[in-house]
Amino acid sequence: MMTDPTALSCPAPAAETERVLLGHGSGGRLMAELLHDVIAAELGADRVTEDAAVVDTGTAEVVTSTDSFVVTPRFFPGGDIGSLAVHGTVNDLAMRGARPVALTLAYIIEEGLPLDELRAVTASAARAAGLVGVPIVTGDTKVVPRGAADGLYVTTAGIGVRRLGAAPSAARGRPGDIVLLSGPIALHGTAILSARESLGFEAEIASDSRPLHALVTAMLDAGGPDVHTLRDPTRGGLASALNELAETSSVGVDIAEDAVPVPRPAAAACELLGLDPLHVANEGCLVAFVAPAAADAVLRAMRARPEGTEARAIGTLTDEHPGRVHMRTLLGGVRVVDMLVGEQLPRIC
Amino acid sequence: MMTDPTALSCPAPAAETERVLLGHGSGGRLMAELLHDVIAAELGADRVTEDAAVVDTGTAEVVTSTDSFVVTPRFFPGGDIGSLAVHGTVNDLAMRGARPVALTLAYIIEEGLPLDELRAVTASAARAAGLVGVPIVTGDTKVVPRGAADGLYVTTAGIGVRRLGAAPSAARGRPGDIVLLSGPIALHGTAILSARESLGFEAEIASDSRPLHALVTAMLDAGGPDVHTLRDPTRGGLASALNELAETSSVGVDIAEDAVPVPRPAAAACELLGLDPLHVANEGCLVAFVAPAAADAVLRAMRARPEGTEARAIGTLTDEHPGRVHMRTLLGGVRVVDMLVGEQLPRIC
Repeated sequence: MMTDPTALSCPAPAAETERVLLGHGSGGRLMAELLHDVIAAELGADRVTEDAAVVDTGTAEVVTSTDSFVVTPRFFPGGDIGSLAVHGTVNDLAMRGARPVALTLAYIIEEGLPLDELRAVTASAARAAGLVGVPIVTGDTKVVPRGAADGLYVTTAGIGVRRLGAAPSAARGRPGDIVLLSGPIALHGTAILSARESLGFEAEIASDSRPLHALVTAMLDAGGPDVHTLRDPTRGGLASALNELAETSSVGVDIAEDAVPVPRPAAAACELLGLDPLHVANEGCLVAFVAPAAADAVLRAMRARPEGTEARAIGTLTDEHPGRVHMRTLLGGVRVVDMLVGEQLPRIC
Repeated sequence: MMTDPTALSCPAPAAETERVLLGHGSGGRLMAELLHDVIAAELGADRVTEDAAVVDTGTAEVVTSTDSFVVTPRFFPGGDIGSLAVHGTVNDLAMRGARPVALTLAYIIEEGLPLDELRAVTASAARAAGLVGVPIVTGDTKVVPRGAADGLYVTTAGIGVRRLGAAPSAARGRPGDIVLLSGPIALHGTAILSARESLGFEAEIASDSRPLHALVTAMLDAGGPDVHTLRDPTRGGLASALNELAETSSVGVDIAEDAVPVPRPAAAACELLGLDPLHVANEGCLVAFVAPAAADAVLRAMRARPEGTEARAIGTLTDEHPGRVHMRTLLGGVRVVDMLVGEQLPRIC
């Protein structure tokens, strides 16, 4: 496939050239537009609605997912880029009902990175994978000259095997479903920002980065096919995740502000920074849409797991206002919860 | 998994701190050491000897592989970073005897990248995947601020299903095996360098970037389990690939210089730049170790494919000098062919 190099290698940047903005990486509205208008359009895909894909290998239902990690700082309270990269991909597989069976690990390293840091990150990734019980089976290492990256970027991909009869999907939410949240929100984003900007919350806020595969297993044991939808609200936060799911399932989401747990230090950090906790990234909680008949059993199963002790119902799905998320505020009003627009926290994961 | 952030987030760079060198990304000796001493050591792996891993999903033999691509320029004669990323991963799967069934695609984008470039790269990746017949099923997009990357980095991962009875492996070379090479070498590296440095060879040299899965299918149809070892000699070139295989299989490799085809313009570029063609990266040829009884049939099958018209036998394996590669020179002498040491051509793929 020959590409005319003169046509593309050095495109003259006309004044009106559309360019990638930091906000295109936000996990919010701009990113959704980029994915739809540029990436999915060129791939010939209809839409990009899931974080992991089911692959028919002919004999097994294999699920695959990938994520790049560019977080800064690379070491933060509650984790580091290595464990985060493992947790992120394990969680994307889990959200499709898959047991992780293998991970790959690819590094883009800036020349000059201390080898001790590379060792520490690799050891952390290995430890995180070991705790999940999933092997890192292959990888790649590229080094770019000083100034062509910022230290270290990590891309993981994962393979999982789908549990028989489990088919959670962004498109399976139904009116009447109960919206369950596994734990407090806004910890990862505020931990990163606090570590980056020395805001003084470093001792109080740790990232929630952790694997959620065992929690999902417990939920599927309890609810089976009644667990309609699972999503980990990472970049763009709970608000963006709920909006994506509402749109994909063509349902409305009603949640109650007082049901959404925001730890006090995270709330204080958000207030200081002018952030909405609903837009702040998480790396260790999930939101689920569960048929009402199974919701109690699933919630009990979640609470029995250490990563789900604070699980709770935060709302319901409705056939009113499809594609939109409404929140009953503490004062009794109702506000529309929108996706994050633009970039709130660059390099949060 | 809590990491003490004070211990690791800002390691004071002592004067004697070991740091990543550009040469650590070369595909040669330094990279082999980094993989062995740092990455494999921390992952608890014994060695890193294959570019793709076989995963037992319980029901199917699934193969997986990943590669990051940081090539500059992103568009070059014969390809671009998008098609290269697809070919690279398809070829890594093929080298383990696997038919590719799914690819993932992760972008790390520098703020300010023209969207037209992102479109062109994505379209090229989609076209390349379409020609292979493998879907890109999921992906990820991260954006980093200006200066934290150089335009666009692409990481692909792939899933393949292993052909029944096929088990080519870096460890299966046996004394007596014939060494087959599918086509001319040194094209990709010289094409990139020529495009980068405007050496004047741009019209004559195009990268050999292309998928090799169909060639491998033809070889396995002809030779079955007698096809012991397959490897695409990318970074580090044919010399590094043969050295890695010699070491992993504990065999010696004897090749003849006059049997290794180096196209005239590529040879001229190498002479100008002081490069050994055996150390220059390829992206569209493979080297195979095949049992002598099957070598003729496999070679005929290769030549019947467009990507193998120039295939030929370039040597044999021996139980003498295990782990080493010897070359009979044009002048009748024998020289040791070593792995590439250090970095010859940064950001070649």
